[in-house]
Amino acid sequence: MTHRFRDLLALEPLTADELTFLLDQSKPFQEIQKHPLKKLAALRGKTVALAFFESSTRTRISFGTAASRLGADTMNLQAEASSLKKGESLLDTVHTLNAMKPDCLVMRHAASGAADFVARHLDIPVINAGDGTHEHPSQGLLDALTIRDRKGKIENLNITILGDIQHSRVARSNIHLLGKFGCRFTLCGPAMWVPRELEQIAPHTRELEQIAPQTSVRRVFEIEEALDGADVVLVLRVQTERLHEPALSANDYVLLYQLNSERLRGAKADAIVLHPGPMNRGVEISPEVADGPQSCVLEQVTNGIAVRMALLFLLVAGYNEEGSHPATDAQHQQPRNRRATDIKDSSHAAR
Amino acid sequence: MTHRFRDLLALEPLTADELTFLLDQSKPFQEIQKHPLKKLAALRGKTVALAFFESSTRTRISFGTAASRLGADTMNLQAEASSLKKGESLLDTVHTLNAMKPDCLVMRHAASGAADFVARHLDIPVINAGDGTHEHPSQGLLDALTIRDRKGKIENLNITILGDIQHSRVARSNIHLLGKFGCRFTLCGPAMWVPRELEQIAPHTRELEQIAPQTSVRRVFEIEEALDGADVVLVLRVQTERLHEPALSANDYVLLYQLNSERLRGAKADAIVLHPGPMNRGVEISPEVADGPQSCVLEQVTNGIAVRMALLFLLVAGYNEEGSHPATDAQHQQPRNRRATDIKDSSHAAR
Amino acid sequence: MTHRFRDLLALEPLTADELTFLLDQSKPFQEIQKHPLKKLAALRGKTVALAFFESSTRTRISFGTAASRLGADTMNLQAEASSLKKGESLLDTVHTLNAMKPDCLVMRHAASGAADFVARHLDIPVINAGDGTHEHPSQGLLDALTIRDRKGKIENLNITILGDIQHSRVARSNIHLLGKFGCRFTLCGPAMWVPRELEQIAPHTRELEQIAPQTSVRRVFEIEEALDGADVVLVLRVQTERLHEPALSANDYVLLYQLNSERLRGAKADAIVLHPGPMNRGVEISPEVADGPQSCVLEQVTNGIAVRMALLFLLVAGYNEEGSHPATDAQHQQPRNRRATDIKDSSHAAR
Repeated sequence: MTHRFRDLLALEPLTADELTFLLDQSKPFQEIQKHPLKKLAALRGKTVALAFFESSTRTRISFGTAASRLGADTMNLQAEASSLKKGESLLDTVHTLNAMKPDCLVMRHAASGAADFVARHLDIPVINAGDGTHEHPSQGLLDALTIRDRKGKIENLNITILGDIQHSRVARSNIHLLGKFGCRFTLCGPAMWVPRELEQIAPHTRELEQIAPQTSVRRVFEIEEALDGADVVLVLRVQTERLHEPALSANDYVLLYQLNSERLRGAKADAIVLHPGPMNRGVEISPEVADGPQSCVLEQVTNGIAVRMALLFLLVAGYNEEGSHPATDAQHQQPRNRRATDIKDSSHAAR
Repeated sequence: MTHRFRDLLALEPLTADELTFLLDQSKPFQEIQKHPLKKLAALRGKTVALAFFESSTRTRISFGTAASRLGADTMNLQAEASSLKKGESLLDTVHTLNAMKPDCLVMRHAASGAADFVARHLDIPVINAGDGTHEHPSQGLLDALTIRDRKGKIENLNITILGDIQHSRVARSNIHLLGKFGCRFTLCGPAMWVPRELEQIAPHTRELEQIAPQTSVRRVFEIEEALDGADVVLVLRVQTERLHEPALSANDYVLLYQLNSERLRGAKADAIVLHPGPMNRGVEISPEVADGPQSCVLEQVTNGIAVRMALLFLLVAGYNEEGSHPATDAQHQQPRNRRATDIKDSSHAAR
Repeated sequence: MTHRFRDLLALEPLTADELTFLLDQSKPFQEIQKHPLKKLAALRGKTVALAFFESSTRTRISFGTAASRLGADTMNLQAEASSLKKGESLLDTVHTLNAMKPDCLVMRHAASGAADFVARHLDIPVINAGDGTHEHPSQGLLDALTIRDRKGKIENLNITILGDIQHSRVARSNIHLLGKFGCRFTLCGPAMWVPRELEQIAPHTRELEQIAPQTSVRRVFEIEEALDGADVVLVLRVQTERLHEPALSANDYVLLYQLNSERLRGAKADAIVLHPGPMNRGVEISPEVADGPQSCVLEQVTNGIAVRMALLFLLVAGYNEEGSHPATDAQHQQPRNRRATDIKDSSHAAR
């Protein structure tokens, strides 16, 4: 089976098979992160454009490092320095970048749908690195990869999501992915952040009816109740910069919704904790939980590089039907003698 | 004939022969932009310093990408982060950069003459990426390359320039270049932006007397009159950040000077439209014109990479008398086996 | 003798032998700065994380260029764009960077002790690129290298330091290094910037007792007296951004403490002048001195690249007992065929 993705804009439209394929493709790139030399030549001679219209540190560095470990060069456009300030339209800006002939565009934008809009106008692959409150698909993938590694599966888990789910593209990408594998979601946070329409967010398919017949999303307003029976707790960052509601004080939030050790004991004994970062320690998560054995926050970061290498490789170099893979190639520590054009036969060659 | 350029500070002092040489040198680099792998090793091991004392997105990314496609590394200094804020003089800043031993300095500065001043103090090639209202030579070259591709020649064309010509280094570089090929210029815009002294800007040489005996620059204040008979329309960005005059409203500007489809019909049927970007759509240019078949704005961007690769290659690697060229070398997709020192004999070698 | 350094956090704890080793290791990298191609492959496939939580231009570019000339890739985190703004703790930020698996962290921070704190929590080498008013060890090394080249030795010299010594990490690193070689220090500046406790800063060891029995640090408040007999004059930048004292006017400073030609004549005839940059010309140093034959400011910058290449090489690639060195390898202009793993035997191989 060959899979070809032109873009990665959202996880919602992907099938369980396609999502599994993307997770599987990330595995060899996870292995590479353990090698002393992590650089491949798979995308040597290629250029990845990173257009961050909304400020970001970790996601930008993660994609940049992923590109660079594949041997690609990067073009960096950041909102602060961009022509947008000079009144240029988004489409003109990305058309201009595209006219410099990058092989892929990774973009983040404050407007939901921006990546989708751009992709419809460009002839190169577009990866959505976060668009407003819509999706952050590479984050959803890295979360799922982390869960699969820790729990051994992503099927039929109880996922509790804490915080501002309403404004969270991370929550949406997680629900769209994990929901396809029969996971059940408990959303918990202040009522204004967990509106009723979120109950309709999870996928409903005939296949899912069979494996998860009940309603798969429920809203709960007591954190103790929300954690009861959880396999995975996804703690969202309190994104104060996105709030326009009358303030809920940090103190109130800590009292009512902070994930601390005592509350975490109410989840399953082997429950794991995810946070997309950056964490507000002492606000949405207590230091003991953040640094405890159930926390996966740093594995998430490492897996982020692997997922993004896999995405860039698939979208830019394309998929090789024989199933060979630059990352599993025994020669991977000698990138210098390999070229993107070698990938096709890299499993046979004795270079 | 060998040409050696130590610096590229302005187009004004260059002869028609030298300008033709630079345009010709850009051709093979244009071809490279169409290849799946665009990276050469011509400048591998070299470092290009990019010092942007005035903020820029597209020009900085264009030079950075050009350097990187030649295999060079870059040093990036941007005004926002620079020591200039700490009171250091321009000369100390560039001497400091130079002491880190880059092979070339690309610089943009808000002061006219800044690049020239710096070049007189440094022992490495300097490329002016825009200095105040003086010149932006790589923009002039990419515009000429675009015109030559579309019109088949750059000789004896009618060039209409619309907007704030007074403050435009782009207009100046275009006039200095195209004027040497007998082009005639019609400058049109608000009177304060098209002062009388601009009539003296075009080159006057004995050779030109023979091919273009009339006055080659005229000022016109009606856009319809200015467009009549135009082969090329160069629309300048309304640079609100550079204006100190009492405001001319955007509405007035649109009414009087916007290039829209109806007005463009007054130019020759095969007239082309250039804009250096970023465009203020709906201000100096209407969307139909910007996106229409006569518009060359995206070709300009692509040609920008080619021109800048040619300039960096010529100034850093030097010119090879035998006329061979890294970009025409059949091996160009295997940059890994080539070094800057190979360029001399790259046409003979069977590497 | 093999030397292994896990981190470079400060010069204070290093012995004279270790310091000499670091200076000796920098020599071949100094030579490389004179070659047309300055790029090695020693750290190819490695990643250097540059985390500048305090703004910097020259030090960041210097480390970035050093990394890139060793063939390493870089991750760039700058305070302006960082998650710190979003409330993330320093430790979470560096743990996150570390989870992306760089091979080394270079960091600057406004808090004294920050690099030390971070190094105790990370499993990769950390290089302190300046922490508050504590130390700036790579600057101390490049200053010593510059002095050794110009004076032929760093033993038993008279070092005069002018300016705000109290807040200067550069002064501290210089004193900790040069003090171990029996240098004597004269500190001169406004009294509030040269407090009495600085007299205790220099190292006191049994070995030093023998070579420099007298008190090795003295405070002097008349610049003429301070310069008398000086072999080396280290002029510090007047760091207005660090001052909270009632203002000493720039005019007063010039009158009382500026190093000008006349005053410099009071030092030894062959005295040299160092400044860490960026200079406030006409404030702490006069233009004639800054540009005169005794000034070493640009050599300092060039040596900065050499010292930082040596540090990155030692900390990331480790030291090769046989004493061979990538920079002395005759093949250094053909980095393409070499890998970090080749370094061990690079002196024997006929590659």
